[in-house]
Amino acid sequence: MTSETAAGNQRRQLHLGLFNQPLGRHVAAWRRPEFTGNPLDINYVTQLARIAERGKFDFFFLADSLVGPTPGATQRAGNLEPLTTLAAIAVQTTHIGVAGTATTTFSEPYNIARSFASLDHISRGRAAWNVVTSTWNAAARNFGAERLPDHAERYDRAREFVSTVKGLWDTWADDAIIRDKSAGDYIAADGIRELNHRGKHFAVEGALNVPRPPQGHPVIIQAGASDDGQNLAADIADIVFTAQDNIDDARAFSEGLRERARLVGREKLPLVLAGVLPIVGETREEAQAILERLEESSDIAQGIAQLSQRWGFDLSTYPLDEPPPPAVYDGNSHSDGHSRRKLFEQRARREGLTLRQLARVAIASRGHRLIVGSYVDIADDFEEWFLTGAADGFNLIPPVAPESVEAFVDLVVPELQRRGLFRQEYAGTTLREHLGLKRPERIRA
Amino acid sequence: MTSETAAGNQRRQLHLGLFNQPLGRHVAAWRRPEFTGNPLDINYVTQLARIAERGKFDFFFLADSLVGPTPGATQRAGNLEPLTTLAAIAVQTTHIGVAGTATTTFSEPYNIARSFASLDHISRGRAAWNVVTSTWNAAARNFGAERLPDHAERYDRAREFVSTVKGLWDTWADDAIIRDKSAGDYIAADGIRELNHRGKHFAVEGALNVPRPPQGHPVIIQAGASDDGQNLAADIADIVFTAQDNIDDARAFSEGLRERARLVGREKLPLVLAGVLPIVGETREEAQAILERLEESSDIAQGIAQLSQRWGFDLSTYPLDEPPPPAVYDGNSHSDGHSRRKLFEQRARREGLTLRQLARVAIASRGHRLIVGSYVDIADDFEEWFLTGAADGFNLIPPVAPESVEAFVDLVVPELQRRGLFRQEYAGTTLREHLGLKRPERIRA
Repeated sequence: MTSETAAGNQRRQLHLGLFNQPLGRHVAAWRRPEFTGNPLDINYVTQLARIAERGKFDFFFLADSLVGPTPGATQRAGNLEPLTTLAAIAVQTTHIGVAGTATTTFSEPYNIARSFASLDHISRGRAAWNVVTSTWNAAARNFGAERLPDHAERYDRAREFVSTVKGLWDTWADDAIIRDKSAGDYIAADGIRELNHRGKHFAVEGALNVPRPPQGHPVIIQAGASDDGQNLAADIADIVFTAQDNIDDARAFSEGLRERARLVGREKLPLVLAGVLPIVGETREEAQAILERLEESSDIAQGIAQLSQRWGFDLSTYPLDEPPPPAVYDGNSHSDGHSRRKLFEQRARREGLTLRQLARVAIASRGHRLIVGSYVDIADDFEEWFLTGAADGFNLIPPVAPESVEAFVDLVVPELQRRGLFRQEYAGTTLREHLGLKRPERIRA
Repeated sequence: MTSETAAGNQRRQLHLGLFNQPLGRHVAAWRRPEFTGNPLDINYVTQLARIAERGKFDFFFLADSLVGPTPGATQRAGNLEPLTTLAAIAVQTTHIGVAGTATTTFSEPYNIARSFASLDHISRGRAAWNVVTSTWNAAARNFGAERLPDHAERYDRAREFVSTVKGLWDTWADDAIIRDKSAGDYIAADGIRELNHRGKHFAVEGALNVPRPPQGHPVIIQAGASDDGQNLAADIADIVFTAQDNIDDARAFSEGLRERARLVGREKLPLVLAGVLPIVGETREEAQAILERLEESSDIAQGIAQLSQRWGFDLSTYPLDEPPPPAVYDGNSHSDGHSRRKLFEQRARREGLTLRQLARVAIASRGHRLIVGSYVDIADDFEEWFLTGAADGFNLIPPVAPESVEAFVDLVVPELQRRGLFRQEYAGTTLREHLGLKRPERIRA
């Protein structure tokens, strides 16, 4: 397949994001003696983004939640807040997109619109917003509520939230700033309009206090796996993250999502990026050795603890060599990590895994797809997913940081480039240009 | 006085902040042919902060409001959002503090706590939060409300907001992160506690998701001029901004504030920093020429428009050479720029200014104190204010950008240093160290 694909220069190419995982995703990654990275050290996080930029990645991505560690839990590290972190990275990089998560459940459109508009100005057109609804009741309890709003309500709010934010970005004309020194007019008299939005969830009257972003609208990312989530993604997302762990499910998901997007009349279909944890070596044996070394310093109890959190009750008393017990669903079934739990359950059933085996998956990848192999193996896997429509690209979750990122950039990226599947150089300077997305016109009032 | 003060090395020294004013404060500053600065260009804003850092300033400060331009108004420029801007500046500077405004009226303690904690980590201990309550009804209308809460209610909320944020910063012990690789514990089992705050305005249960800031608590700034505002400042502020335009009022204000702080048992009294717009020259004549050139390209109508906004009705039909008419106060008298309007009114009465003369003040400084003179004049003025207790330092509002900042750093700072009134070099690396403030202990639960 290599020789056939190498020729095509104008061929459709895949897209790559790097998921910020400063300790590495494998729970044992930070315990290696040589590991020195610190998630609170902006220079270290910037270094990860720069490695990805060296590899011509489309964007660097920060996940987020509004929940801190539980007292007594010793596994979580604490992280920097996404918007401030991305702004700091933006001024120390030149091309790579800067993508961050912000919830629509416990924030206000005016605040989110201005933060991402500002990030887009600071990065000169490289910002992306991952639109999420909060999924943990513990987040609600940090914002004055006992529990989350119902799933449908959260998505209804998210939809109105995004359209309100886009409306705010469009309150300024692209050419609003005229700087007419002789007349003394900084802004054109017809450059600004009020939003005057009055909806079910929000009422926002005025114009934004930040001019229209360089990209028009920062890129929109969505990752909802539920029916509501997929419908929202079909409507609003430029990029959709998925967590499918096998090619058949991924293809079914991608096709379903594209169909939903066609039905709502989308001209440019959302790009589906599949989450993946690659452990890469020069050879398959080298990659396998990396994984084995990590497993040696992993404690199965860490995997059980992680699954217990997803399941909603303590699994440590269940037999390790039998199938895991069924999870318990509360009335608001999409809360508290429901979708990830569902992936774990499906996988256990499909592959006939015991509780111990499932715990090992949790330890290595927290449910995401782990692939272990030579750089040729990884490129083959990506090529198959890409060419069969299972994904338009990949969101790379490094099992080990920074080594997994470096190995990917030094070994897999050149292989993908040789096959014509990935860019040799950035062709543009904005994230929309990297992704082949048009700059949206200002919506008419 | 120079020779006496020059000796004192351990003497109390004044503090300097630079107010970000990328177009220059004088309304004609951006209209100069040679002006090329762009408030949306992060490199330009960073350049201003770097000039201040060259001048050993304590901090660089960003004001904020949640109101965009009104359609048809042509004077406002639009700005970057403070937190993202300061994070970008932090990684391109090494010593100067990064101070930003965030309102307590239309945000949530959990979000503000994590953003400033993150900025403090990114800057390695240089963050400050200017705590404000929103003062424009137009801001309320961007957040689903018809008008602002009452003044007392806003301050009540602000007080609980700040104590909740401090509580969140203290949910992590300073030594919570242990990174015990052999045991697999990243956080100490007793390193984290929940907040469990249930107050009148907020209920916040969990721990923050960002570890305790390097400074313990980022520095707190407050600028309330009202009785409620001064009481809040006396309780919580490390720094208080004032806008008094003469030394007697400033001294009375500072003494009053210190007395309030003593009454509530403050060990370290708040530092009062007076807002000031210096137009500096090698000589008095040179400074005067700068001002005259600016006034030539100013239109008196711009000053009238600005006053009309403060007054709440159109002043353009009033006679220019008579005293301005009294302002109208609505029921919620501290909203919509009340305190600045009060300063204008007092000044007009005290100095017997006509509407035209007051409009000229508005054009030059928007009500803040403008001083025009040689670098010796400016240093004399600062020395008098500082030594007589009218101020502990100054928040510099550049009338012309970047020239006013450069002239101040190149001419006035060396003069203040010669007199022993200002540091020659930064002694520490955190903003608390620059200000001589202790790092707060974690509050016991």
